[in-house]
Amino acid sequence: MVSVLPTRSMQLVCKSTHPALRSASSFATRRAISTVSRRPLNNHFAIARSSKGLQIQRTFTSSSTWRLHTQEMNEEQLSSLKVNQKRLMEDLHHTCQWGTGERWGDAPTETGMSRLALSPADKLARDWFVQTTESLGCKVTIDAMGNIFAIRPGLNNIEPPTYAGSHLDTQPTGGRYDGILGVHAGVEMLKVLNENWVETQYPVGVVNWTNEEGARFPLSMVSSGVWSHSIPLKTAHTLQEIHPGTSTLSTALSHINYLGTVPASHTSTPMAAHFELHIEQGPLLEMANKKIGIVRGVQAYKWLTIKVTGRDSHTGTTDLKSRADALLTASKMLLHSHKVATARNALASTGILNLWPGSTNTVPGVVEFSLDIRAPHDDVVRGMLDTIETDFRKIAAGEDVGGLNTGCTPSLPLDVSITEDFDSPATSFHPRCIAAVSEAAYSALGPDGKNLVMEMTSGAGHDSVYASKRCPTSMIFVPCREGVSHNPREFCKEEDCALGAQVLLQSVLRFDRQRG
Amino acid sequence: MVSVLPTRSMQLVCKSTHPALRSASSFATRRAISTVSRRPLNNHFAIARSSKGLQIQRTFTSSSTWRLHTQEMNEEQLSSLKVNQKRLMEDLHHTCQWGTGERWGDAPTETGMSRLALSPADKLARDWFVQTTESLGCKVTIDAMGNIFAIRPGLNNIEPPTYAGSHLDTQPTGGRYDGILGVHAGVEMLKVLNENWVETQYPVGVVNWTNEEGARFPLSMVSSGVWSHSIPLKTAHTLQEIHPGTSTLSTALSHINYLGTVPASHTSTPMAAHFELHIEQGPLLEMANKKIGIVRGVQAYKWLTIKVTGRDSHTGTTDLKSRADALLTASKMLLHSHKVATARNALASTGILNLWPGSTNTVPGVVEFSLDIRAPHDDVVRGMLDTIETDFRKIAAGEDVGGLNTGCTPSLPLDVSITEDFDSPATSFHPRCIAAVSEAAYSALGPDGKNLVMEMTSGAGHDSVYASKRCPTSMIFVPCREGVSHNPREFCKEEDCALGAQVLLQSVLRFDRQRG
Repeated sequence: MVSVLPTRSMQLVCKSTHPALRSASSFATRRAISTVSRRPLNNHFAIARSSKGLQIQRTFTSSSTWRLHTQEMNEEQLSSLKVNQKRLMEDLHHTCQWGTGERWGDAPTETGMSRLALSPADKLARDWFVQTTESLGCKVTIDAMGNIFAIRPGLNNIEPPTYAGSHLDTQPTGGRYDGILGVHAGVEMLKVLNENWVETQYPVGVVNWTNEEGARFPLSMVSSGVWSHSIPLKTAHTLQEIHPGTSTLSTALSHINYLGTVPASHTSTPMAAHFELHIEQGPLLEMANKKIGIVRGVQAYKWLTIKVTGRDSHTGTTDLKSRADALLTASKMLLHSHKVATARNALASTGILNLWPGSTNTVPGVVEFSLDIRAPHDDVVRGMLDTIETDFRKIAAGEDVGGLNTGCTPSLPLDVSITEDFDSPATSFHPRCIAAVSEAAYSALGPDGKNLVMEMTSGAGHDSVYASKRCPTSMIFVPCREGVSHNPREFCKEEDCALGAQVLLQSVLRFDRQRG
Repeated sequence: MVSVLPTRSMQLVCKSTHPALRSASSFATRRAISTVSRRPLNNHFAIARSSKGLQIQRTFTSSSTWRLHTQEMNEEQLSSLKVNQKRLMEDLHHTCQWGTGERWGDAPTETGMSRLALSPADKLARDWFVQTTESLGCKVTIDAMGNIFAIRPGLNNIEPPTYAGSHLDTQPTGGRYDGILGVHAGVEMLKVLNENWVETQYPVGVVNWTNEEGARFPLSMVSSGVWSHSIPLKTAHTLQEIHPGTSTLSTALSHINYLGTVPASHTSTPMAAHFELHIEQGPLLEMANKKIGIVRGVQAYKWLTIKVTGRDSHTGTTDLKSRADALLTASKMLLHSHKVATARNALASTGILNLWPGSTNTVPGVVEFSLDIRAPHDDVVRGMLDTIETDFRKIAAGEDVGGLNTGCTPSLPLDVSITEDFDSPATSFHPRCIAAVSEAAYSALGPDGKNLVMEMTSGAGHDSVYASKRCPTSMIFVPCREGVSHNPREFCKEEDCALGAQVLLQSVLRFDRQRG
């Protein structure tokens, strides 16, 4: 087993603690013999003196005989590469100083996050990501969507890197794990590789995707969408931030100096594979007492906007039968959409609802609301949309649908319009990536592995959906408390974060080995 | 019959067209003999030269033998005093240039109004009201709530005036008649009295009440409420304007220079009676083909704020049974409140609903909505509140109330809190005022009167509710198209506006005569 010593300056220090390396040239020996303030140690490392003592920095100029190569490692050597749980969590909470959200507990880290994409807080987290990965020897590329690609060279740098990726932005009332854990697990992977003097066959990378949440600029996973050529750059750049702001995505990128010159495209920053560690954001792993979700794909979903148009009227003088109450009608639709989802073992949710004119004594004439419908299969989502279109028109017209009107006063008819804003068909991840994740999970979990993993379909969309259109992809889920996410109380145990990061590391290494 | 000639400068001119006055001293004669730029004509009038020609201005210094006195007029003389429909409507639409709202038709006047209380548009309408009533010989008083009292002296000016009153502010998407018609009918009353050289026994007044709608500062009828000592001045002054503004009511009053020094109190500006002409804002008169509503009182109502607290969660990953969806729960409550009202032949309405955090892929954890419950009798409203308190708690806890949960997935329990923001018990108007309105209606409608009036209860609150706490009060309703109000399409026919104004004029005169 490898003994990993956490240090505060770990992100700037490469310490080899691997037995194979210790036998070749131990870190202690190297430090003892090196007193020059900065000089080449070999053609991959230099020693630098700093306030924290001597540091060995990677320079990645060429290969070396004493380097551990993934393709030459046996299963035992591979499995012995371990992430440092304490360092991972310290790093994660360190960056959560930028955009700290609502407090839910007494401990310093028991707060949510409110780090909207491209906000000042997001800029600080991005700066940390760039500085940290550069200090770990990575080449950093920023594209026209502000996606940040940090690449650690391998032996063969002509082929594209194998990536770990996720996002640093959060919902306005989000938590510390959604997206953030995935990026930090990628950075921790770089640190483990560095401190263990591992040279991969091909480059490995960590990517931070911009505005995954779609919470500030209302199109989620927009930047991996542009990268995969699924969303036009112009559409993305002209996204208006949600009320009450006035920025577009491109002006916000410029404002924080993250509008890169490299095209946002898989042809400019290609990927051999994309692995994403993420909290499950649902309760299934926790309920089943499992530790790792091997994600085979992502469920289908559509985002709709429903507009109900009735007539404003006075609440005190308009008898119920003379009303065209847009909010009462919308309430029936909301309740009905839930029943439609229940009947199909699917999901229907409304997260946004606006009404006009908005006065206590005026019956609203117009209501507009979002409707998010999801199911594992495309045909179920399509069927739900058909049902909703038919039934919502009936509800607006005043017809009784499923007993909704029982005990109600018949009212005047209303109009309804339904717009499909976003369609994400069901996604199947790549068998090779799924296999790499499975092997990594069994390696990380040991003999009891089979009882602790669950194959599953992701309920949420992720950047991996778009990545999967252009490269082999899979995801790793870890349980989060009570399945709560998009909430300040979102929580993943430290050991589960580390276990997920360990599976991510092992997945990337195994994929790298198998590229041949 | 009196022939009334409308002129553009009518509000500045006193022309006697009454037969009794013509015989004494015709306007034509007066104009012919008067060429001095401004000199006393008698101790009540002066002649002034202006760009619009010679004008006779009332000075109200004392009585005169040739003046028509209400107490001396017989029924025929009284009934022959008529409002000028064309002038009334021209004045009304003239002031609707300030705060013009959404267009609904092609004609110049076919727009709604958006004249929030104490806005720049409201200031201009107020300025017009002050200038016009002063030019008609009134003394204008502005109190600490910005209420504007315009008083036309009578023979006995020691006793308080008989008032016509309403309000010039509107809902954000309101119409041209709610409140505005009542104030203009009062101004038209002054013009009719002036042009017919009528001197009332006691003073008559017109009052414009501030922020009746409660649309900008969220407490309706707040200023008549302060006047009647029902609402503390401090409560009113510190009302915060609705989002996104930052003014309080008192800073807004100062800002437009309408923060008067006279206390807002019935002891400082007493009233002998308060008559209010208003559109019905409901469909009953139109449906019954009636022209005048004699309003015996106002129904009881309460305004509640309901806050539902569940848990934010991700729309894609949280299965339905693991949710505490505040919006789905609020939808059930809204639908149930409608059923509770239907069962009691009462009203329940939600005009405001806000949710948090407000993202398409986040199930809302918190929803807050208004609930306005009304019925003609206090005990019905109280009973509705009891039922709502009991049932909303059950709905939040996940219990099935009246089959609302049929076809739904059971979810996690939620919390609900119910706050009573406003309570307006049922109001009964004064028999003497109701009698004056009845006599006036029969006088205005002629022989077919009995078929064209309807005794009714007001569904809406009005400043007359608070006025009635301190002086005899009643209201006059006129039909509005399809009962629509608080809507740009709110519409009252010109002849119905004029008929209502005629009944208002006659009610005030008849009350004045009967004060003895």
